[in-house]
Amino acid sequence: MVSIEQSAVEQHIVETVVASFEGTPDPRLKQVLQSLTRHLHAFIRDVRLTEPEWNAAIEFLTQVGHITDDKRQEFVLLSDVFGASMQTIAVNNTAYKNATEATVFGPFFVDDAPEIPLGGDIAGNAEGQPCWVEGTVTDTDGNPVPHARIDVWECDEDGFYDVQHRDGRVGGRARLHSDANGEYRFWALTPVPYPIPHDGPVGKLLQSVGRSPYRASHLHFMVVANGLRTLVTHIFVEGDKQIEIGDSVFGVKESLIKKFELQEAGTATPDGRDLDGRSWTRTRFDIVLAPADV
Amino acid sequence: MVSIEQSAVEQHIVETVVASFEGTPDPRLKQVLQSLTRHLHAFIRDVRLTEPEWNAAIEFLTQVGHITDDKRQEFVLLSDVFGASMQTIAVNNTAYKNATEATVFGPFFVDDAPEIPLGGDIAGNAEGQPCWVEGTVTDTDGNPVPHARIDVWECDEDGFYDVQHRDGRVGGRARLHSDANGEYRFWALTPVPYPIPHDGPVGKLLQSVGRSPYRASHLHFMVVANGLRTLVTHIFVEGDKQIEIGDSVFGVKESLIKKFELQEAGTATPDGRDLDGRSWTRTRFDIVLAPADV
Ligand SMILES: [Fe+2]
Ligand SMILES: [Fe+2]
Repeated sequence: MVSIEQSAVEQHIVETVVASFEGTPDPRLKQVLQSLTRHLHAFIRDVRLTEPEWNAAIEFLTQVGHITDDKRQEFVLLSDVFGASMQTIAVNNTAYKNATEATVFGPFFVDDAPEIPLGGDIAGNAEGQPCWVEGTVTDTDGNPVPHARIDVWECDEDGFYDVQHRDGRVGGRARLHSDANGEYRFWALTPVPYPIPHDGPVGKLLQSVGRSPYRASHLHFMVVANGLRTLVTHIFVEGDKQIEIGDSVFGVKESLIKKFELQEAGTATPDGRDLDGRSWTRTRFDIVLAPADV
Repeated sequence: MVSIEQSAVEQHIVETVVASFEGTPDPRLKQVLQSLTRHLHAFIRDVRLTEPEWNAAIEFLTQVGHITDDKRQEFVLLSDVFGASMQTIAVNNTAYKNATEATVFGPFFVDDAPEIPLGGDIAGNAEGQPCWVEGTVTDTDGNPVPHARIDVWECDEDGFYDVQHRDGRVGGRARLHSDANGEYRFWALTPVPYPIPHDGPVGKLLQSVGRSPYRASHLHFMVVANGLRTLVTHIFVEGDKQIEIGDSVFGVKESLIKKFELQEAGTATPDGRDLDGRSWTRTRFDIVLAPADV
């Protein structure tokens, strides 16, 4: 139990630090730093943080800083595994009517993905089981959104995005546009799980708390259309065990889990494509975009 | 205003992340990480953190990580300027009767400081105005604490600790012991203000919020005695302008501000020492140690 006298001492420290930011010229920066101060101190006081724990935290952050470079961003991973990235997404993409929910952007988007026609294949130089994806883009009143720009990207069957291979290959990503009726369709790869980089301090943290570094299988979407809120999201695979185990970055939302129906080898494809005797899957994702100003 | 529906979405993320730590084998680690999660998410939700702000935070932490090395600990500075270091000290050194208050340890303590006799001089190779320091060490019942170990350290008149000079000099630090009656006395230097290292990201942050990087003038103490709680503290100089402006790491406590009485050149010294016509100051600091188990 913390005595009233002790509590007053601690609260006085909080108020002194908050007051130290009072002269910040930028009012938003002031608001953010004062709120951060209050929440940070509330954490220290709630858990009665010990001095060895404070030292361990400093040492942990130092390691996170030292593994971070141009190619490896361990602070982003740290934000991800505490759900801070996902919460930031949630705060900035507020629920609106039946609009499709957003999820984390992730580090593997590339801006110059190849354009493909409707019904084209995003696989390129990525291997995996073929997957037919189709759906509509509408606004929240159900009006079709024609010519919406749709970026899609995913890992290959080994769990790597093309940019993680060091040979400059392009695969598992493309850009397409919905048709005049707001409909779209393309060939992709059936999504598979992959781990976030886990050979650093964040990976050690996950291990010490018994958490899996794997992400639930997913296919990324970014959808852009005039006058509507840009949607960054994934779809997840119904029945994927990693959804039960837990997505390491908390990207899964119930509404984003879709059936990927297995089609046995030889099943006729929607566009008559010959899959050389391979099995394939199919899924449907109807995208609903919120207005830009909500 | 956040809608009830939106609030439920955000709260669901919090609960999912908290639940992800449920399997942590170490119960204390579980408690700390779950509390950290709740406070971190509360911060993001309270300020409605934007995605550009999240990016700026990642970039800031990356810079803090990159300037940190064996000699420079920018994460400690960051903790200091948010008062997190001081709050951790407060939480672990709870107010107890009339026990002397603790404050931040700081980065400049050295374990093998020279021993001096009672009445000796800690100045060594540090320059500055002489300062006579005296007082008693007692427990909270007023009993003298004989032979308490007292470490004292401070910067020179240029604002640098000996270890900040690169020439291996020793000065402005010593170890002594209270006498059989719990009394102590020594010569030191009148404390002067100095800035925390402010050429890095934390310094830039202080600048952007209009805060001074200077610490209020102080003299560090660490007092160790059998069966009593180790005290790490400073004394501050009454009238020091930096106390009004604000100590950059929030170390000042009212009870630790002491009169440093200016003695004009030629004033007789307590021990008859000849100060070569220099002015000097004198102060008194009566130290009260809490029991070890509170
Ligand atoms: Fe991904
Ligand atoms: Fe100091």
